[in-house]
Amino acid sequence: MDTDYGIARELSDLQQLRTLYKPQLPPCLQGTTVRVEFGDATIAADPSGAHTIKRSFPRTYGQRLAHFLRATAKVPDAQLITDHPAVRVGVVFCGRQSPGGHNVVWGLFDSLKVHNPKIVLLGFLGGSEGLFAQKTLEISDEILATYKNQGGYDLLGRTKDQIRTTEQVNAALNACTILKLDALVIIGGVTSNTDAARLAEIFAERKCLTKIVGIPVTLNGDLKNHFVETNVGFDTICKVNSQLISNVCTDALSAEKYYYFIRLMGRKASQVALECTLQSHPNMVILAEEVDVSKLTLFDITKKLCDAVQARAEQDKYHGVVLLPEGLIESIPEVYALLQEIHGLLRKGVSADNISGQLSPWASALFEFLPLFIRNQLLLHPESDDSAQLSQIETEKLLAHLVETEMNKRLEEGTYKGKKFNAICHFFGYQARGSLPSKFDCDYAYVLGHIGYHIIAAGLNGYMATVNNLKSPVNKWRCGAAPITAMMTVRRYGNNPSILGQPALRPATVDLKGKAYDLLRQNATKFLMDDIYRNPGPLQFEGAGADARPMILCVEDQDYMGRIKELQEYLEKVRSIVKPGCSQDIVKAALSAMASVTDILSVMASPSSY
Amino acid sequence: MDTDYGIARELSDLQQLRTLYKPQLPPCLQGTTVRVEFGDATIAADPSGAHTIKRSFPRTYGQRLAHFLRATAKVPDAQLITDHPAVRVGVVFCGRQSPGGHNVVWGLFDSLKVHNPKIVLLGFLGGSEGLFAQKTLEISDEILATYKNQGGYDLLGRTKDQIRTTEQVNAALNACTILKLDALVIIGGVTSNTDAARLAEIFAERKCLTKIVGIPVTLNGDLKNHFVETNVGFDTICKVNSQLISNVCTDALSAEKYYYFIRLMGRKASQVALECTLQSHPNMVILAEEVDVSKLTLFDITKKLCDAVQARAEQDKYHGVVLLPEGLIESIPEVYALLQEIHGLLRKGVSADNISGQLSPWASALFEFLPLFIRNQLLLHPESDDSAQLSQIETEKLLAHLVETEMNKRLEEGTYKGKKFNAICHFFGYQARGSLPSKFDCDYAYVLGHIGYHIIAAGLNGYMATVNNLKSPVNKWRCGAAPITAMMTVRRYGNNPSILGQPALRPATVDLKGKAYDLLRQNATKFLMDDIYRNPGPLQFEGAGADARPMILCVEDQDYMGRIKELQEYLEKVRSIVKPGCSQDIVKAALSAMASVTDILSVMASPSSY
Repeated sequence: MDTDYGIARELSDLQQLRTLYKPQLPPCLQGTTVRVEFGDATIAADPSGAHTIKRSFPRTYGQRLAHFLRATAKVPDAQLITDHPAVRVGVVFCGRQSPGGHNVVWGLFDSLKVHNPKIVLLGFLGGSEGLFAQKTLEISDEILATYKNQGGYDLLGRTKDQIRTTEQVNAALNACTILKLDALVIIGGVTSNTDAARLAEIFAERKCLTKIVGIPVTLNGDLKNHFVETNVGFDTICKVNSQLISNVCTDALSAEKYYYFIRLMGRKASQVALECTLQSHPNMVILAEEVDVSKLTLFDITKKLCDAVQARAEQDKYHGVVLLPEGLIESIPEVYALLQEIHGLLRKGVSADNISGQLSPWASALFEFLPLFIRNQLLLHPESDDSAQLSQIETEKLLAHLVETEMNKRLEEGTYKGKKFNAICHFFGYQARGSLPSKFDCDYAYVLGHIGYHIIAAGLNGYMATVNNLKSPVNKWRCGAAPITAMMTVRRYGNNPSILGQPALRPATVDLKGKAYDLLRQNATKFLMDDIYRNPGPLQFEGAGADARPMILCVEDQDYMGRIKELQEYLEKVRSIVKPGCSQDIVKAALSAMASVTDILSVMASPSSY
Repeated sequence: MDTDYGIARELSDLQQLRTLYKPQLPPCLQGTTVRVEFGDATIAADPSGAHTIKRSFPRTYGQRLAHFLRATAKVPDAQLITDHPAVRVGVVFCGRQSPGGHNVVWGLFDSLKVHNPKIVLLGFLGGSEGLFAQKTLEISDEILATYKNQGGYDLLGRTKDQIRTTEQVNAALNACTILKLDALVIIGGVTSNTDAARLAEIFAERKCLTKIVGIPVTLNGDLKNHFVETNVGFDTICKVNSQLISNVCTDALSAEKYYYFIRLMGRKASQVALECTLQSHPNMVILAEEVDVSKLTLFDITKKLCDAVQARAEQDKYHGVVLLPEGLIESIPEVYALLQEIHGLLRKGVSADNISGQLSPWASALFEFLPLFIRNQLLLHPESDDSAQLSQIETEKLLAHLVETEMNKRLEEGTYKGKKFNAICHFFGYQARGSLPSKFDCDYAYVLGHIGYHIIAAGLNGYMATVNNLKSPVNKWRCGAAPITAMMTVRRYGNNPSILGQPALRPATVDLKGKAYDLLRQNATKFLMDDIYRNPGPLQFEGAGADARPMILCVEDQDYMGRIKELQEYLEKVRSIVKPGCSQDIVKAALSAMASVTDILSVMASPSSY
């Protein structure tokens, strides 16, 4: 199959038109010269983990933030990058395909060719396995021609998403050394960027000259933190899914006889489900994060759904649409505990057939209570990130089954007097993942590719490309790079918080105190009862909606970097006011005010307050 | 729930923009006056059924074709319709929702208001049930505002698709009489338009003044015949499904580890599956019509699929996309026979639980061989058209299961040496059915709505609105009306061809001698082996692809009416050449030539040649 990579393809009219679309670059990346400004040294958000992260990443923790500015920017400390040697760069797709991935490769290629046509870009064929086996394809304009602004990862392919074991790391180091790579760009999500950070540290330790750069590409939208506002692919996935959900809502309202239970991709975090809910207004969504924080059991969730069905029946409504994130199943406490037991036994080598006999009595009781199809799905081997195979577990069918059983019971008991409950189940994932990327994802990915090269040119290692102010038009975007270690957290396992886990990026779950969730809560009753379905329509490339941004991005005010910048301006202002020669009163006032500020912040930033 | 019909809704930006789109009218319908030309009396295509149809429809069989022309058209026999009394018109959605249905109501409303603002249009709420119960909503511009160019049937809702039993027909007649309707417009597919023809006949027989008009709206695209080129909804459904199929193809090619088995809506006929295949080039499609004509068994189909998987594995390809029309299951001979037995027992009142014990030995053997989930689905009650509940039978899972079992067997036996076969199954239907309608469907439906009014104004009964030359731009469309009885056939049941069934419209299956199927066959090997996936992209309303027509429509040269017109011009020419005074030689030549033509045609048109 290797020979098929990068071959030209027959494209539809729309695909052809899309290949002609050239994403804009923000002002700072236009032209051939960029200035890099180094900001403060970074720290991890959670001070209690900082020490552990620093110990694990002695060479790459605490590096300074980088901002890319236009060559003409009047920032005194910013360096003009003028040296562009003919380096060799590798690029690899890690993890699951996400719309827009191809544009990262294109942006990277365009940027390096503008700076030195002799720079070589090698794409690894078949993901990390291709990296280990040193299977490469030299990227050229001809090869990119039919992949610009197109979906999928089929230009290079992908395999498993891990570069983690000693063997894998050694194979990667070996490949980079033999291929004389000056840099390796890793395109992926939470897991792949954690691996990227570890590679960067190990490569530095072993004096390998290859620098590692991470690019945040994951449809889950869960690689979110102070530095990263959203990920390539999330916008497209949410738009395509919202279209389908809206179509189903319209269908439900037209036929008036079915409840549609729809499970959505997105792994542990419910970002996709939240965004789709805000876009299409289905009757209900049950976020994994809500279940997690309220410790809702299967029984609770079933009751909640049945009460909703019953309330609607009282208004003579026998249809509805319910969204369920795929991570929901793991957030239900008793199912989580059952999965932990199953995964423990699987890890011990117990075969799936023998597991049910070795479960604890309560786990066994729950297991036997579940329908056969779910039992088989729960017995699947866990994924590389230790979570269950969420895409394979049909939570929507389980809940539809439980709701149907309960509604039939209520009907028999006479506590429910409406029509019979009918459900149709869907899993929306694979049919969206290969979509043509939205304009936003095309632009974002292309810009990130460019930044990838500037990170390399600046000689940085273990950094992720970042763009801020994404909710604004491209000409307002701010480009930079942040050390991946600054995005890490350390997980406390189980009951003993003194045992710390490995530092890693974690999927950003939905913030139940955030503005996006708040918007959902404010409208939840209307969504549930009033069928105010909204159809964002099919993904458009021209006209209305073509430039829409994810609602979460627009609602949440994420300008963290902007605020840090603003703070630094305040500090600079104080410094410029309080200079030798100013009045004693001013010095006193400044001292008193600043002492108070630092006191407050010290208290807030101390580990105990977490 | 009644109070919610027709209420204004919150629309997304794109939805709002779409409400502003005003479909074009073909020249013949522009302005306030239309001329109607009556063509020849119609006959049924199958002469052997003509007698039966005529006997069943003495008042509505053999009516003349109608063509609508612009007021200024210089056609001597065409009548100018100038009388537009303040009639009362009813409109009802019958059968399953199809994108574009709302625009029929809108077109009808616009047309009648242009001709006489006092004409009343009553929409029946909740489909045929609403008709029987006389639940109506008077259509107004305000009510239509948020439903123009929008998907679904939620403006009025729909229920079951039948107006067939004596009780139902009486209820319909009663409603039309009490509401003093001059006409009733029935929006639906094959079944609903058959019902419309029967209503027209019965109403005429009982001297009911309400005229019946049918509008061909069905996403299945199977209401096709000499007069009807395609149906409202088919274009949208195929575009939305093709997008999803293409996304899955891209996904398959990126991950390289799954076979996707995708079942598509479309009922008995495989029109949707064929169109989607031509648009997106999946590896394989198995049309119900192919299975039917080749009498392929489950075993044959499984073998065919396994051989394809094996051939691809030999090229190191372990992914693929296979399309399956939902009607496939009924076309497999042994499954069909099993279904016949099951439906027979169900009709006798045998409960589903007791059926397996009462099957014939061979049917029982097949039944027991099938996986449990399929058995339960086969036991469902048949639909109103006597077919199985195709949307509920997971043929894709059955075939994926059989292929997996067979591939594992080949692996064990050593006849297959590739990687394990992995399948992911999908059913694409509900998520497309509620889509915003494509520009083509918006235009087509709106124009049909207008024609609906002109049929009423011309005083016709039992006619369907028709548009020809649909593959050309709207200004080339030709508008007309054809008696529904002329589209009917009579089915010969079982082994005794002398026992004739009820005349009815039948779903037009894929023509295996047609150009569209031929195109598929020519490319089948390339599709199978070369992964020449093509992504038409998401449904666009502006720019590339926005004006695309269904491929089947473009490939097949369906200009039947155009040809009849052309023939008539020839006859006219002969008549004008052979006039008293022309030479004896010309008369002789004309006589001889025409005698020969009529001889040939008489032979071809005689029942025995069918």
